[in-house]
Amino acid sequence: MSGLSEFALIDTLLKPLARRAPGAFALTDDAAVLPVAPPGEVFVITKDALAADVHFLSDDPPGDMARKALRTNLSDLAAMGAEPVGFFMALCLGQETSENFVKAFVKGLAEDVEHFDLPLMGGDIIRQPGPFIVSITAVGKAREGAVLRRNGAEAGHHLWVSGTIGDGALGLLVAQDEMKNLPAAEQDYLLGRYRVPEPRLSLGKALVGVASACIDVSDGLVSDAGHLAQASDLAGQIFQPNVPLSPAALSALQTDERYLETLLTGGDDYELLFAAPPDAEDKILSLAKQSGVVVSCIGEFTKGTGVHVTDKDGMALPFHQRGYQHS
Amino acid sequence: MSGLSEFALIDTLLKPLARRAPGAFALTDDAAVLPVAPPGEVFVITKDALAADVHFLSDDPPGDMARKALRTNLSDLAAMGAEPVGFFMALCLGQETSENFVKAFVKGLAEDVEHFDLPLMGGDIIRQPGPFIVSITAVGKAREGAVLRRNGAEAGHHLWVSGTIGDGALGLLVAQDEMKNLPAAEQDYLLGRYRVPEPRLSLGKALVGVASACIDVSDGLVSDAGHLAQASDLAGQIFQPNVPLSPAALSALQTDERYLETLLTGGDDYELLFAAPPDAEDKILSLAKQSGVVVSCIGEFTKGTGVHVTDKDGMALPFHQRGYQHS
Repeated sequence: MSGLSEFALIDTLLKPLARRAPGAFALTDDAAVLPVAPPGEVFVITKDALAADVHFLSDDPPGDMARKALRTNLSDLAAMGAEPVGFFMALCLGQETSENFVKAFVKGLAEDVEHFDLPLMGGDIIRQPGPFIVSITAVGKAREGAVLRRNGAEAGHHLWVSGTIGDGALGLLVAQDEMKNLPAAEQDYLLGRYRVPEPRLSLGKALVGVASACIDVSDGLVSDAGHLAQASDLAGQIFQPNVPLSPAALSALQTDERYLETLLTGGDDYELLFAAPPDAEDKILSLAKQSGVVVSCIGEFTKGTGVHVTDKDGMALPFHQRGYQHS
Repeated sequence: MSGLSEFALIDTLLKPLARRAPGAFALTDDAAVLPVAPPGEVFVITKDALAADVHFLSDDPPGDMARKALRTNLSDLAAMGAEPVGFFMALCLGQETSENFVKAFVKGLAEDVEHFDLPLMGGDIIRQPGPFIVSITAVGKAREGAVLRRNGAEAGHHLWVSGTIGDGALGLLVAQDEMKNLPAAEQDYLLGRYRVPEPRLSLGKALVGVASACIDVSDGLVSDAGHLAQASDLAGQIFQPNVPLSPAALSALQTDERYLETLLTGGDDYELLFAAPPDAEDKILSLAKQSGVVVSCIGEFTKGTGVHVTDKDGMALPFHQRGYQHS
């Protein structure tokens, strides 16, 4: 990239994002100091990397890429029931990454720094000959011993999911110009769900002590249900008619029922998928209401392995996940 | 990359590196939980990214790349006076990254996990069409309010450096086959210094409360002295004859005195460069001895801006850094 140097990028674009974190030292030092954890609280950390042309499309607005990179990490914190406190970022600029791209990227990031009131605390900028890559490390906090894990489900526990499923995968198809039959408003809705996911932070935090296991849906509903089931040494049963779909996803399904597989196995939902004992139902519905997000009970855990999806007649649908996949 | 999937890579190669960190949950969850900080301690975090063909040469052994990636982050913690407790890693595998490369990379990393007794706590593996990139986030701990910063030097404070300077830059030349005049043993020494730097963790921790400012030399002695001077709003004066050189660097200088500029301005030293009041000299020499590393007083801070290097006759050498560079 020509134009601004790394120092100038940090000085002019990134330093303002760090101003609410005294321990970030205005990004001038070798490392940042986290705030002192209050007694009984622990820090929770997650780290992801996203690459242009892999996790983003070249047409995606750079600001949305930034927000997605941050939000997918926040979704990991939500799945642990943690509350975010700040983040670190490594920007790996490619040969073709323009100054305007970086400015638009940081502008989008700045919007989410405001939206989540979450400071940038440090990081790195490098230049390299490949595609643009961003790696974010998000730091959250939780009560000691009170994080949501994947491995706590028991046989008989219900399987719940927040929001609606499949919008992200359909949004990717919209971005690839493959959903032209849908009304423009529905295409826009799906595209937005794909580009700027909503981490379910409030719900995740509320589920601590209520849910027995939790994950965020990033690989796809069936696959991530498989991760929960496998970690808990159980089988997952999903009753497909209960899987919550948005009006736009229902429209897509009306145009072609083969989209059902996309909805159930596509990724990029960033909804919370969690297990809970049957008697927690009222509590869960109440917490979800307080968190401003809909939740749906879509199945249960049983002894066995893999994930099994059945239709309204109890017939098996061919979207199984047979235990932990090494492929 | 063909062969092992991300899941299999994590399962077979990375999981063993996480076994000493209970909060890493064997790398099976969405995020990791840091241990509870003892009262009065804070966490210190740094994040860097390194790319093949930029920060590594294609001939570098993959295991050394891994150790360098980890160690440059540990060097940042050393410069803050922090003690490392664990690290996170995002591996961005390129199209040409082979399974053997990844295995050798993780083998080198495993050696340093043992050497520093430092667990891998989490991270991510992605595939993308560019060069191999690794981003590491290192977590350290320090006493609250007791970290080394860059901005504490005062006029009259001395400028000190650990170890020897310039070996990393010469080691890069060795790797590029440009130092064939040197004896093989000296070439090997320099290459080792370039490929596997030694973070000065023990010295950094010992300097807390003694040094008034500190940085690690990654960009080059003159440039990083400039960062210290600029952060402290002072000028740096370096007396070149006092800059400590290794026998191999002295040999190189005998073959061509123009290497002096390489030594003073090249990067990749990962030595600590720090400021201290003149009356701290005995204390510093004693702490350095306890830490098993040589330190040298190479100059001082004065009012003014930039970094000025003088030779044995007090003549200015042309390796100035005129304040903070935006280029």
